[in-house]
Amino acid sequence: MTTIPESHQDLLRSQFATLATIDDDGYPQLTEVIFLYDDEDGKVKFSLNRARYKTQYLEKRPKCSVFLLDLENPQRFLELRGRADVASDPDYVFADRVGAKYGGMDLRRMDQPGESRVVVTVEPVRVHAWTTPSRS
Amino acid sequence: MTTIPESHQDLLRSQFATLATIDDDGYPQLTEVIFLYDDEDGKVKFSLNRARYKTQYLEKRPKCSVFLLDLENPQRFLELRGRADVASDPDYVFADRVGAKYGGMDLRRMDQPGESRVVVTVEPVRVHAWTTPSRS
Repeated sequence: MTTIPESHQDLLRSQFATLATIDDDGYPQLTEVIFLYDDEDGKVKFSLNRARYKTQYLEKRPKCSVFLLDLENPQRFLELRGRADVASDPDYVFADRVGAKYGGMDLRRMDQPGESRVVVTVEPVRVHAWTTPSRS
Repeated sequence: MTTIPESHQDLLRSQFATLATIDDDGYPQLTEVIFLYDDEDGKVKFSLNRARYKTQYLEKRPKCSVFLLDLENPQRFLELRGRADVASDPDYVFADRVGAKYGGMDLRRMDQPGESRVVVTVEPVRVHAWTTPSRS
């Protein structure tokens, strides 16, 4: 139920993920973000600025979904529904691991003075891998 | 709040949308689907098989989100949060309008005998247009 099939593992190395949270009015809230698939524990993680709405929503309501779309073939995707664990990243240790994936990008430059950053780790409860025309 | 900026209107003509519903356990549920932007009333609509999980979720919980990603530049996207109105499409009238967008695709071929199809119309409550690097 939470195993990622071989056919879709390449999507864990892609550049962007759609992260879905639940907003304060109960609507899904979707944004496109950079992410890291952590080989050490096999989990999808995000480095988020704590001030962002999505971070606030995840702190209040951990249920989320990560959607990895094959941009070359949008009829192939991987969805991981799960619970978000939000932890502080005061020294940008995790942010720098994410930055390394993106050619050494410095995530500090995205933040204003006084802002802080968190590590969001998604504990999957359900994995949905899809290929071929979407049965809409 | 629900106006779609000129800069992102092209995305209403794209081929696929990510549709987010809320599943029975309260998690966001995301799938990639074909859609139609209806010029007549300016609304995003889907032709869905009634048997699909997403349709069942929308019938129970209308709060949803439609995410239109620029596949050429995933740092540009349009998100429409709204309420889904679900109506029967017994004669495939709307399904054929969607099919016409996709080169005359016949949506009947996606359905099994005895299955039925609905029109899902999203009444937007919030529009979020984004360009430039995602502030994650």
